[in-house]
Amino acid sequence: MTQTAPHQSDAAEQQAREQAVTDEVAASFATSTSDRYREVMTSLVRHLHGFARDVRLTHAEWETAVDFLTRTGQISNGRRQEFIMLSDVLGLSMLTVGINAPASRGATESTVFGPFFVDDAPEVQLGGDIAQGAKGTPCWVSGQVRSTDGTPLAGVRIDAWEADEDGLYDTQYEGNRTAGRGWQVTGEHGEYRFWSVLPTHYPIPDDGPVGELIAAAGRDSMRPAHIHFKVTAPGHRTLITHVFVAGDEYLRNDAAFGVKDSLIAEFTEHQGGTEPDGTTRQWRQVEFDLVLAREEQP
Amino acid sequence: MTQTAPHQSDAAEQQAREQAVTDEVAASFATSTSDRYREVMTSLVRHLHGFARDVRLTHAEWETAVDFLTRTGQISNGRRQEFIMLSDVLGLSMLTVGINAPASRGATESTVFGPFFVDDAPEVQLGGDIAQGAKGTPCWVSGQVRSTDGTPLAGVRIDAWEADEDGLYDTQYEGNRTAGRGWQVTGEHGEYRFWSVLPTHYPIPDDGPVGELIAAAGRDSMRPAHIHFKVTAPGHRTLITHVFVAGDEYLRNDAAFGVKDSLIAEFTEHQGGTEPDGTTRQWRQVEFDLVLAREEQP
Repeated sequence: MTQTAPHQSDAAEQQAREQAVTDEVAASFATSTSDRYREVMTSLVRHLHGFARDVRLTHAEWETAVDFLTRTGQISNGRRQEFIMLSDVLGLSMLTVGINAPASRGATESTVFGPFFVDDAPEVQLGGDIAQGAKGTPCWVSGQVRSTDGTPLAGVRIDAWEADEDGLYDTQYEGNRTAGRGWQVTGEHGEYRFWSVLPTHYPIPDDGPVGELIAAAGRDSMRPAHIHFKVTAPGHRTLITHVFVAGDEYLRNDAAFGVKDSLIAEFTEHQGGTEPDGTTRQWRQVEFDLVLAREEQP
Repeated sequence: MTQTAPHQSDAAEQQAREQAVTDEVAASFATSTSDRYREVMTSLVRHLHGFARDVRLTHAEWETAVDFLTRTGQISNGRRQEFIMLSDVLGLSMLTVGINAPASRGATESTVFGPFFVDDAPEVQLGGDIAQGAKGTPCWVSGQVRSTDGTPLAGVRIDAWEADEDGLYDTQYEGNRTAGRGWQVTGEHGEYRFWSVLPTHYPIPDDGPVGELIAAAGRDSMRPAHIHFKVTAPGHRTLITHVFVAGDEYLRNDAAFGVKDSLIAEFTEHQGGTEPDGTTRQWRQVEFDLVLAREEQP
């Protein structure tokens, strides 16, 4: 038994040495230019070090992480954001949504922003078509934007974007085309309406670092079919959400952990009139109201 | 007092919702292709989520982090590794060194690898000059590479690299020149020796994301003067370390947290002979043995 004493002491010394590194680094943020920066970075250092110490991170794993993160930055560009995708598959996006949008009574729930938003989407008038060449069954999307007290929110911007029937966003095609995305301004009763296409479930892009992670994790890379919305209204919290297609087989297995029951809606089937060639036009319809919490609302 | 009950309940519900996200994401790694991957990623998720929950990470902060990490990847290239520098200033590098190289009795201590190593440094014979145009006071660097049991390690590769008297590595200059770096093979008694220049303390590069971090933290960006070594010998743990210049004013305030007392050495001053123009050549000398732990050594 006398043999174990030195080993216990060695382990305690090793632990103390590691703790000293963490404490020194955490203390180096004491001079931060804002209290919030100090708070965030000190916590980051303690959790980051806690992770490395808990798993006994090897030098080779550290090198792998440096390489992984470098490539995640380098594959990102104005039309692909691999770090957002990484945040999505690590559940950080959905957790951040949950931290910042605690269920406001009556407001539409939020979900992940995703990596496919672009800044320069076209404006589409009420009743216009955001598909612009995106392939798929036509889909009429409409609803009302209002405040949780029922006030319609007129003249506010609503952005929508989605994958086509092949499960691809426009940004995933060659040639910088813009399709399946657009924004419009709500009408006097807060109404929005546009043509689009029925979205399809799809695998998140697997040709970058996040694809390697999904493969190493043995996870499914699919996201259930959805249309993205971002709604910005004065005096209200910006709403970032999806409407999911009811019945999609991946609703319980979203690679981005983004599904909430309240965001699932029926995309009802319709038959249009007979076309000149005798065929019948098929289309879908979804109605989805978007209810925004006031900024001061707890 | 009856008012507080619902709030407590709300807080508990919020906490439970957040925990459920963390648990769901952690569980998604259960199918990992290796036990180690599952262990590392599950811990990463729990610590990453713990950080976000502890600081109540805002959406704007999340966006800032995504942008910061993206730019950290994009500024990196074959001659600059901003993610290693980030790891250095967050103390993760030094912690990883400490986890993997618990003080082996008699072995030279390790320190950070740093962001300035390059793969294609030139070979320099014993007694040759690695400066190759790097500015500074000539410095004779020598010592012995041996095993902890005293066995000289002949014929093993030793890499050295350093900043010049302006505090810059060759990779920080325009034009892809190589200077202040090289490798040689130890002689039959494990000896190494080369000319170089006296290294200078320097600020880590401040023109990228890590510079922003250092500024926001109100921290000093200086690293004390040092020469890097990497020594690779069969049957031994690869040694990655520095020799620091005794007396440097930043030894107690290293931006990368890399200083260990055992790595500080005197760079003694010498006067050479009189040059043809009547001036006297000044030079420095440091002797620094590099002692490697055997791989099986605890």
